Amino acid sequence: MSDIIRVAPDTIEAAIREVLAARDVPEDDAGATARGLVAANLRGVDTHGLACLPDYVTCLDENRIKAKPDMRVERRLPWAATLDADNGLGPAAATRATALALEAAREFGIGATAVRRSNHFGAAGVYAAMAAEQDCIGIVCANASTVTAPFGAAAPLLGTNPLAVAVPAGRHPPFVLDMATSEGSRKKVRKALAEGKPIPDGWSLGPDGRPTTDPAEALKGVMLPFGGVKGSGITLLMDILSGVLTGARFGGDVLSVLTNQERESGNGHFVLAFRVSAFLAEGEFAARMDEEIDRLKALPPAMGFDEVSYPGEREWRISTERAAHGVPVSKKLWSEVTDLGARCLS
Amino acid sequence: MSDIIRVAPDTIEAAIREVLAARDVPEDDAGATARGLVAANLRGVDTHGLACLPDYVTCLDENRIKAKPDMRVERRLPWAATLDADNGLGPAAATRATALALEAAREFGIGATAVRRSNHFGAAGVYAAMAAEQDCIGIVCANASTVTAPFGAAAPLLGTNPLAVAVPAGRHPPFVLDMATSEGSRKKVRKALAEGKPIPDGWSLGPDGRPTTDPAEALKGVMLPFGGVKGSGITLLMDILSGVLTGARFGGDVLSVLTNQERESGNGHFVLAFRVSAFLAEGEFAARMDEEIDRLKALPPAMGFDEVSYPGEREWRISTERAAHGVPVSKKLWSEVTDLGARCLS
Repeated sequence: MSDIIRVAPDTIEAAIREVLAARDVPEDDAGATARGLVAANLRGVDTHGLACLPDYVTCLDENRIKAKPDMRVERRLPWAATLDADNGLGPAAATRATALALEAAREFGIGATAVRRSNHFGAAGVYAAMAAEQDCIGIVCANASTVTAPFGAAAPLLGTNPLAVAVPAGRHPPFVLDMATSEGSRKKVRKALAEGKPIPDGWSLGPDGRPTTDPAEALKGVMLPFGGVKGSGITLLMDILSGVLTGARFGGDVLSVLTNQERESGNGHFVLAFRVSAFLAEGEFAARMDEEIDRLKALPPAMGFDEVSYPGEREWRISTERAAHGVPVSKKLWSEVTDLGARCLS
Repeated sequence: MSDIIRVAPDTIEAAIREVLAARDVPEDDAGATARGLVAANLRGVDTHGLACLPDYVTCLDENRIKAKPDMRVERRLPWAATLDADNGLGPAAATRATALALEAAREFGIGATAVRRSNHFGAAGVYAAMAAEQDCIGIVCANASTVTAPFGAAAPLLGTNPLAVAVPAGRHPPFVLDMATSEGSRKKVRKALAEGKPIPDGWSLGPDGRPTTDPAEALKGVMLPFGGVKGSGITLLMDILSGVLTGARFGGDVLSVLTNQERESGNGHFVLAFRVSAFLAEGEFAARMDEEIDRLKALPPAMGFDEVSYPGEREWRISTERAAHGVPVSKKLWSEVTDLGARCLS
């Protein structure tokens, strides 16, 4: 018997709202967090969806994330906002930041929000995709707890530092690039260790500063950025935009909210959105994006590929399927979530 | 005896101006092109400096690049410009686009220019660095003639599509990331072929769609984006921003101005610049960037590295040295340039 059940997105969203509301998270923040996590599940990014809830709840229960933060917005310029998230839930902060950027984009054609004192925000692509839904190109990045060494270093300074960029199209699903700027992840290294398997080349250096494919050595060493020296520059740029520019922690100072008991984690995010109509009429832009995608899809696949895909295409298909048939959730996780609801309602 | 001479940057700039002026290139465009190419030489990017001049001149002489383009600027929004470069010199168009973006950034805190109908513009980092000199974060990208297959494809759709991002610092040199978003380059593949050497893994697919390290096979096949599926998404994004959004050619339609006799090459560029003071006071931002760089420089180097560097650091050192001691130029190139001057003054 399968240990996976299908749960309707609305049911998951309601369950998350209920669990958070019972921890005194205000309705708006609970709703934003619920929608952010479910949106990740819909896109197939299950590691950044409902699965985050138990950890978020632990952090709320232990006061490591504030249930009722006093988030403050300042504007130095009409299109530019800074958001001090007061150590609240990351998805609530990122949703608010994106809404502020899109509000400015509606008025001025462009908007950006720099977020400090936030936390893990789920999947970056969820927020970028909100921009594409409003005919904007959206760029979202964040820094994260320190595990990644810049190119040429044997010690960590950076995190998985996600980057997401979304671009609207016409009849095709939007382009949504959503990527960690590290090559692998600690989670996958731990999985390889548990399974007694090596990790791929290029993921890690061991504690001696040499490349390793041994997961045990990798866990004592550092993760590497994607794409060698070029990717390393982009990972560092994510920390500059999300950390240096926002007033958040940066350069090795961001902690994991899960493992750290000392102080707030200090994550920063940066969101930029601009209307495509600043440069081309929306219809013309959409037609040109469709043409770009048509040409890409018409390319012959390389050896070992059935088709040529673009970022966001696969996630859109999954999303359509899951919206119709429900999100696959393990019985274990669903009972844990149900339990979290019951535990605090009692 | 060395076949390299050192030439003062001003001397090179004057020589380029003279050669272009004699081909009826207006003073502003000739000056911008001369400064753009010399700036690339100063940064050590010699492939994108003076070495481009003979090709540019051939294109001018054969009317494949217009000496006196009628470049037109339109603004749909106060901060957003489109520049139709009318098939003029790329560095002249990119310099003008950057100036327009920085002009808007001075007034509104942010500015962007979308360029269509341009040509090869030299080194992207040169224009991004102009933004950093004015306390702005500058992002510059371009598309280029079609040689690169997106991830999973066996035929090309994209180019070397450069991306440059510059960020000002305080006492440290600015961060200037300046990279092709393809992994290798055709030029280096041809060099390997001439030297009878293999090319690195991950550069190319052969005509059968399989990975190859044989340069002859690679030249019949396609180049690959940097960084696997993630880098491929970024290469495609460069084409979307520089091509789809600007009204330029895109999706396999950009030609090389050097090899194509049929029509204008159709390159597009996109330039975005915003003041760091939109989010933090300039002094505070500069101090935080210095702190980021200090922390990076203090990391222990990995095996095989003497120090940990950040993007733009090496180029800054070269620039300082070359500003003082001159740019190394091969006697062959210098005599060719002198000849180009003499040829048209006669």
